Amino acid sequence: MTKVIDFQTDPSKYRHWRVEYQGDVANLVMDVDENGGLFDGYLLKLNSYDLGVDIELADIVQRMRFEHPEVKVVVMKSGKDKVFCAGANIRMLGGAEHAHKVNFCKFTNETRNTFEAAEADSGQKYIAAVKGSCAGGGYELALACNHIMLTDDSSSAVALPEVPLLAVLPGTGGLTRVTDKRKMRRDLADVFCAMEEGVRGKRAQEWRLVDEVIANSKFDATVAERAAEFAAAMPSKATRGITLGPIQRQIEADAIHYSLVDVALDRAGRKVVITLHGPDAPTPDSIEAVQALGDQSYLLRLAREFDDAILHLRNNEKDLGLWVLRTQGDSAMVQAEEQILLDNSGHWLANEILQYWKRVLKRVDVTSRSLVALVEHGSCFAGVLAELLWSVDRSYMMEDEFEGDNRQLASIVLSPSNFGTYPMGNDLTRLETRFWGQDGQAEALRAHIGEKIEAAQADELGLVTYIFDDIDWEDEIRIFMEERASFSPDAMTGMEANLRFAGPETMETRIFGRLTAWQNWIFQRPNAVGPDGALQRYGTGVRGEYNMQRV
Amino acid sequence: MTKVIDFQTDPSKYRHWRVEYQGDVANLVMDVDENGGLFDGYLLKLNSYDLGVDIELADIVQRMRFEHPEVKVVVMKSGKDKVFCAGANIRMLGGAEHAHKVNFCKFTNETRNTFEAAEADSGQKYIAAVKGSCAGGGYELALACNHIMLTDDSSSAVALPEVPLLAVLPGTGGLTRVTDKRKMRRDLADVFCAMEEGVRGKRAQEWRLVDEVIANSKFDATVAERAAEFAAAMPSKATRGITLGPIQRQIEADAIHYSLVDVALDRAGRKVVITLHGPDAPTPDSIEAVQALGDQSYLLRLAREFDDAILHLRNNEKDLGLWVLRTQGDSAMVQAEEQILLDNSGHWLANEILQYWKRVLKRVDVTSRSLVALVEHGSCFAGVLAELLWSVDRSYMMEDEFEGDNRQLASIVLSPSNFGTYPMGNDLTRLETRFWGQDGQAEALRAHIGEKIEAAQADELGLVTYIFDDIDWEDEIRIFMEERASFSPDAMTGMEANLRFAGPETMETRIFGRLTAWQNWIFQRPNAVGPDGALQRYGTGVRGEYNMQRV
Repeated sequence: MTKVIDFQTDPSKYRHWRVEYQGDVANLVMDVDENGGLFDGYLLKLNSYDLGVDIELADIVQRMRFEHPEVKVVVMKSGKDKVFCAGANIRMLGGAEHAHKVNFCKFTNETRNTFEAAEADSGQKYIAAVKGSCAGGGYELALACNHIMLTDDSSSAVALPEVPLLAVLPGTGGLTRVTDKRKMRRDLADVFCAMEEGVRGKRAQEWRLVDEVIANSKFDATVAERAAEFAAAMPSKATRGITLGPIQRQIEADAIHYSLVDVALDRAGRKVVITLHGPDAPTPDSIEAVQALGDQSYLLRLAREFDDAILHLRNNEKDLGLWVLRTQGDSAMVQAEEQILLDNSGHWLANEILQYWKRVLKRVDVTSRSLVALVEHGSCFAGVLAELLWSVDRSYMMEDEFEGDNRQLASIVLSPSNFGTYPMGNDLTRLETRFWGQDGQAEALRAHIGEKIEAAQADELGLVTYIFDDIDWEDEIRIFMEERASFSPDAMTGMEANLRFAGPETMETRIFGRLTAWQNWIFQRPNAVGPDGALQRYGTGVRGEYNMQRV
Repeated sequence: MTKVIDFQTDPSKYRHWRVEYQGDVANLVMDVDENGGLFDGYLLKLNSYDLGVDIELADIVQRMRFEHPEVKVVVMKSGKDKVFCAGANIRMLGGAEHAHKVNFCKFTNETRNTFEAAEADSGQKYIAAVKGSCAGGGYELALACNHIMLTDDSSSAVALPEVPLLAVLPGTGGLTRVTDKRKMRRDLADVFCAMEEGVRGKRAQEWRLVDEVIANSKFDATVAERAAEFAAAMPSKATRGITLGPIQRQIEADAIHYSLVDVALDRAGRKVVITLHGPDAPTPDSIEAVQALGDQSYLLRLAREFDDAILHLRNNEKDLGLWVLRTQGDSAMVQAEEQILLDNSGHWLANEILQYWKRVLKRVDVTSRSLVALVEHGSCFAGVLAELLWSVDRSYMMEDEFEGDNRQLASIVLSPSNFGTYPMGNDLTRLETRFWGQDGQAEALRAHIGEKIEAAQADELGLVTYIFDDIDWEDEIRIFMEERASFSPDAMTGMEANLRFAGPETMETRIFGRLTAWQNWIFQRPNAVGPDGALQRYGTGVRGEYNMQRV
């Protein structure tokens, strides 16, 4: 599996999903093309999915928000008879290397989170209309919808059979959502997650696995009725969206260029340098002007390009373990671009762009690469871009003038957005997480909103890790980068996964922390992935052979 | 490493620690005998530790509470020159199989938690008086103390060098405590955890790594002074403790017998049946009478025996993946024994016995075995023993009379203790965790305190998973046990670790969840444990050879 994975797609290219728009309700139909696998060696039977299927789903969820703001309810259903979705394709998982499995799970988890949050963030509620078998990752898709309807017939059931069948976990949120979201009693969850056949009918409702069980004959009508009801109860937003055109991207051997993002790949140094540029056009003077710019408006374009770069690097450049984040540009212009959105946060598009940045920043938070930010002269870490400074593992800032460098002195600018617009997965702001346990310290920074905070003051306020002047800068950065690139990547992943999420946890952080970590452990265990393990033996009729030692 | 590991010890057998009692202050001196390793193949140099060293420490912490209630402050120090503690022994870790590493970490984590909590639970505050190098697990020992004092000389430093040196995590709470307990800023934690040499002097205090830095010449005097101050500020308890004599235990090939606990090992069925018996003597009529009974009082004796059985089975019977918990006895007598303690919870010994049960129950919660409780006729799941029903993964209860069985009908009895005396690691009661998200449901059960709740009602109240009558009982239990014993042990471990801890997390659950899971993953990765990995190469002067792919 070494081909380049492209996360860009559009409706003209979909092979696995179709969307039927009917006013404020959209039907999202999963109808996987079994010959459309991203890689060779497996057929996507029974609406099973691989990363390619999920890339389309993520694209749909994203376009729904920007291109179809009129949609209030999305009904997820199957285009196949007798099966809603059989979950992740097991042959694909069996053949995939460890890193691909882990990356696949991360991306599917992120996608589940985005459509789950669409109701609160964007006023788009996802309903799962389940007919037929809904198993494993299939039921995890349903779990990420905020309302689950199950038809009552002899074959329609929801199930999480991973543990008994495959010796792995329902790792795309399954174990966490049954207890934390569905509030299923943990002993019943134990029963449910240890059975192959799943649960159907009234019992599925009694156990809180679904919200409604409906006679088969009335199912379609009831689903339509419920969708209309939910839609009627939600406030209207806009009737016309914007179009998300193709992003401008040029991939070279050691660089990727977007219109506002440059990525330099340093294979020898095992690192990448990602530079986000400030606005390249005058600031629009109103939200209407932003809307007129559509996908070319600054913060939306930057978010799309940065998001694509993150996904590309995560999946296609696994040996580059250190990401260096830089900005260059006019920080006053960055501020101004963000301020229009903050001033119009009730406007659907302003809201969507801000919410999208929330998601992109969360993607940074859970990226398993060492992350460092360099606050150089000429940089524009203002507002939303300043969030990056507290998303990374550490940061370095230039102090005082550097010889021969006539760019504007490095500074950081806080905006009101840093105090609540982009919460992390733990529901705290990045500043609150940074100063966790230091009562009031994050809040006290409000007094500095709008100031150009230069190095000495940034250091004093705790906004950066290190400040260095012209004499030390280059050596210090070089030594750090060389050292970081020499450490065991696994130890880095484990360390960063712990340190980035200090303090309280939420369902979301528990999915990426507790659940994912245990799944990754199991993905290393011969009982699951060895030659006689359950994933390899799946479909052969012979059960996996297990070492029965408990660890 | 197949010899039987015995968790019973007493001061006459200590090889690695000594305790000097001086009124209300005790000096706990770590002075590891380098030839005293639990297994062959390594020397415990530089106050490094293995499981044997930790078994002694756990014994000391336990005896401190029961045998020396007069102690208010415990000063942990080193008996060696120039080194406080070098952490877990790397050669031991390098040679240990995966399961031993994991069990070792779990026990050391439990022990750290117990002395950390000793201040709140038992009025015994632990101080770390750090002279010399304090690295890795050594600093994690200090982190678990509630006050850290560091001498200011050129060689005394605290460090977590696991990541750069060994390619593993500071997994005995280190990564979690620096952020969650010490409230270290996460970017400084990143710097700290990526450096080999550690931090000394004032900087250690500025970074919140220690509470005080003291000139070397004044160190001993200041430590003594601080200990006296802390002691003076804490309330007095008792001047005379009780003696914890040897427990009564007989280990046979397929059984272990204690005075109140029987363990039957079913190797073919890959399970153990643990039976806890009700009181075998009349209930004492006062807390003074309980104290007169000392270590023979019912609930203390039962806790010690059960605790020993748990540790024995965890470490010595790894192939027995299912634990069946039963009770037999008079539930009114169990209630009466507990009620004396609850009525006298201000009495030091009553408090210690209740707190000990809190710890034993937490040990059950984090045990990586499938746990099932059988509520049979003649059982005594009352109060503290009823907690077991909500600690296990699922439970089965007998309904109505069984042919030829004239024992008292199965019932469950709630006591006030089920509503707050034995919180889980997540700081909720087991009933709150069980009914998490069901507002008021746990609290509503208070109305049933003291009732004999038989099967139908227990089912209705949600206290058990299944009830079966004489016709179905045997088959249902048998099928469940056979099925459970056939599943992949790894998948069970992952599933149970997720389902048992629904909802909120605390520092403690994050240590056993997030941190431990990532560490276990790393303990499977060739970069750490492979033939060219860091653990194998440690001490050879050649650095580990890493696959640089990020996962």
